[in-house]
Amino acid sequence: MSSLRVLGIDPGLTRCGVGVVEVARDRSASLVHVGVVRSSADAPVAERLAAIARGIREVLDAHRPDVVAVERVFAQHNLHSVTGTAQASGVALFLAAERGIPAATHTPSEVKAAVTGYGSADKRQVQAMVARVLRLDALPQPADAADALALALCHAWRGGSSAQAHTGEAALTPAQRAWAEAESRSRRTRVART
Amino acid sequence: MSSLRVLGIDPGLTRCGVGVVEVARDRSASLVHVGVVRSSADAPVAERLAAIARGIREVLDAHRPDVVAVERVFAQHNLHSVTGTAQASGVALFLAAERGIPAATHTPSEVKAAVTGYGSADKRQVQAMVARVLRLDALPQPADAADALALALCHAWRGGSSAQAHTGEAALTPAQRAWAEAESRSRRTRVART
Repeated sequence: MSSLRVLGIDPGLTRCGVGVVEVARDRSASLVHVGVVRSSADAPVAERLAAIARGIREVLDAHRPDVVAVERVFAQHNLHSVTGTAQASGVALFLAAERGIPAATHTPSEVKAAVTGYGSADKRQVQAMVARVLRLDALPQPADAADALALALCHAWRGGSSAQAHTGEAALTPAQRAWAEAESRSRRTRVART
Repeated sequence: MSSLRVLGIDPGLTRCGVGVVEVARDRSASLVHVGVVRSSADAPVAERLAAIARGIREVLDAHRPDVVAVERVFAQHNLHSVTGTAQASGVALFLAAERGIPAATHTPSEVKAAVTGYGSADKRQVQAMVARVLRLDALPQPADAADALALALCHAWRGGSSAQAHTGEAALTPAQRAWAEAESRSRRTRVART
């Protein structure tokens, strides 16, 4: 396989981010698709899950990912909405398995660390990095869409990172290198911006 | 519709209880099917959800319920396992919606109150009542199977309870009447048993 096509899914009942990236062996990445699947808060939960599922299946049909990466849901966070988020993640993982597509989950910290080099990076930093790596003119909007792309990038890069650590080449991912550069630039401009 | 066929689902990744009951207009109920769908704790979560989905679809195909009732998952309880439970409930609700079958959720307290008359009844009391109402020779095992039947009974009875309250007949459901009788009997025998 000369490149890996990854569908990242940021699960949610109200907004479910979906992002497809194609990542080459040299770790360069390009945008294939990004969007948000929505469902109405007025609909019964089963109908909402069915709407989310229709949207995810459309992406699977249109873009044929090699693998699906879903954000891992923690019960500790956002007790109020975690049930709906977990339900949507369950449907997303099931849809991948149903089609025989490998599926993985990644924690928010893993995604942040893979994309920016910092496990505690804030959302804006992650979005800026995603835009930079994928050579987008603007930050992906809404945040759920950007998160889905970040997940997809995380999955593709983490898959190769342990192998690369053994060869000794490229201790930083391309994103991490770019981040280090951007960070040093932002240190010089931060005072002017805020 | 002379009777209502309800599939109750007690969601879980390791054991997912499924129970189908047929409830007549006079609220009498009979057992159609009861079982547990299992998945291996060693399998990836997506595969586990797919296994649960296969089991639920088999029940939908074999027994054609009019409605599906799923236990409502609360993030407050069992933080450790709630994510998997919520994921399984999401898949169950989605499978119903996908087939155009109405789906509802009920809280454990609603189920206990509908089946035994007490929102704080313990599991054993619920199981005993389910066995009695469905005229089973033994308590349904494991507990997940009994819980699924209790959910199905709860849904069928609650659906009719507000209408019946207006007619003035049957202030207690058959289960509640039977429970009241059983309870008065148990008061007389409790000392001898413990």
